[in-house]
Amino acid sequence: MQSLQFTAESSSNGTTERDFTVGEIPGVLWSPAPGADRAPLVLMGHGGGTHKKAPAMSGRAQRLVAAGFHVAVIDTPGHGDRPRTAHDEREIAELYRARAAGEPEGPVVVRYNAYLAELAVPEWRATLDALQELAEIGADGPVGYFGINMGTAIGVPLVAVEPRITAAVFGQHWPDALAEQARRITVPVEFAMQWDDEHIPRDAALALFDAFASTDKTLHANAGRHKELPRFEADSAVRFFVRHLGRAAVTRA
Amino acid sequence: MQSLQFTAESSSNGTTERDFTVGEIPGVLWSPAPGADRAPLVLMGHGGGTHKKAPAMSGRAQRLVAAGFHVAVIDTPGHGDRPRTAHDEREIAELYRARAAGEPEGPVVVRYNAYLAELAVPEWRATLDALQELAEIGADGPVGYFGINMGTAIGVPLVAVEPRITAAVFGQHWPDALAEQARRITVPVEFAMQWDDEHIPRDAALALFDAFASTDKTLHANAGRHKELPRFEADSAVRFFVRHLGRAAVTRA
Repeated sequence: MQSLQFTAESSSNGTTERDFTVGEIPGVLWSPAPGADRAPLVLMGHGGGTHKKAPAMSGRAQRLVAAGFHVAVIDTPGHGDRPRTAHDEREIAELYRARAAGEPEGPVVVRYNAYLAELAVPEWRATLDALQELAEIGADGPVGYFGINMGTAIGVPLVAVEPRITAAVFGQHWPDALAEQARRITVPVEFAMQWDDEHIPRDAALALFDAFASTDKTLHANAGRHKELPRFEADSAVRFFVRHLGRAAVTRA
Repeated sequence: MQSLQFTAESSSNGTTERDFTVGEIPGVLWSPAPGADRAPLVLMGHGGGTHKKAPAMSGRAQRLVAAGFHVAVIDTPGHGDRPRTAHDEREIAELYRARAAGEPEGPVVVRYNAYLAELAVPEWRATLDALQELAEIGADGPVGYFGINMGTAIGVPLVAVEPRITAAVFGQHWPDALAEQARRITVPVEFAMQWDDEHIPRDAALALFDAFASTDKTLHANAGRHKELPRFEADSAVRFFVRHLGRAAVTRA
């Protein structure tokens, strides 16, 4: 097993941010101030074309850390600090071509994200192994997963095979490559979609939500286009993890 | 205009409960402790077969009062302290007959609730007139509406014609008699449905949500049957009113 190496550390507003690597995988771990008790861990998957410290990641992490959680994000292959392969470049060029031509981007995104998920799922499992070696996380603490868009394309196959993850927030993806794996997921799920999404047809989003086998699952559909997911859904995700990972929220000054 | 007469008053846990009448209409007003500043008002509609002080009403009111709101509920005609007419008795008998025969109850509920809404909408408007005469509410304060099931069958036509109501929480009804009025509603809406509702088909619930013209609307769909609406949706409704009626939530000890 590859162990976790911290490469940088900084602190602000009661949150400690530590860059790390697990083998070739670069990641970031946001945590409550040192000295806090052992706390539950939320793994977050970033969106396509972004990276582990994109504003959506650091903003959600800030809310989760304030509620008492550790939060870890890793760069997906081809993203952030990781090199792009010729295959990555071809798929990205194809996505831009489809967009410029006014063609639906779903077929390209679904195919490329499924390819990335194949690479990313074992990386996430190795990262979780290494994170659980840390004293402040531990091998038997609760673990959640939070990822929208590409974070769902990677998270659904991850949660389907990873019994340590016991609650998940997903959203905004097509069912094509994911519904079969969603049918194997039974842990509590919160799922966000945009009611007027110009990329993901409404029925497609509803079909993916429907596929989860979880008896405890909630759909949040908001009026608006693909990029208009309301910020209050991040607060809802925090409450969801507080309910399911057993951490009483303590808001810090 | 008919004025509001208080007929009983009690207090517990920082909540004042005052029974009132407006003409023939019996109601209850739950309020923060006397002496508090003028506060926004939430009108709540009760479910079919229940009444103004049913546990769902007093429980939701307790949460809303703790967040700083006044909450008013009136008995719908044929419910609570109000007499049943021969027409009420026939419709209720028909509902029980349909249930016992294993027939869908939708056609009876939709028809009877539409009839009750015709009576209840002008009663709500007269009650709101009278409530706004109270110094602690006032004529220009924010007003919300919160009603599920029959509370939606009455609330949708009410909010469609009542410009004083600027935010509404609805849910769990058929679109048949309501979609046309929902298309005239443009205020922020939160809408709850049960994903596995044995009475209201999934597509019917989605069609009613879709009908609202509001650009700010959110659907919350939870796994489970008709009566299994999770209690955390009441907390979500409180947060919705805090966002939209402009009241900062102050949780009281």
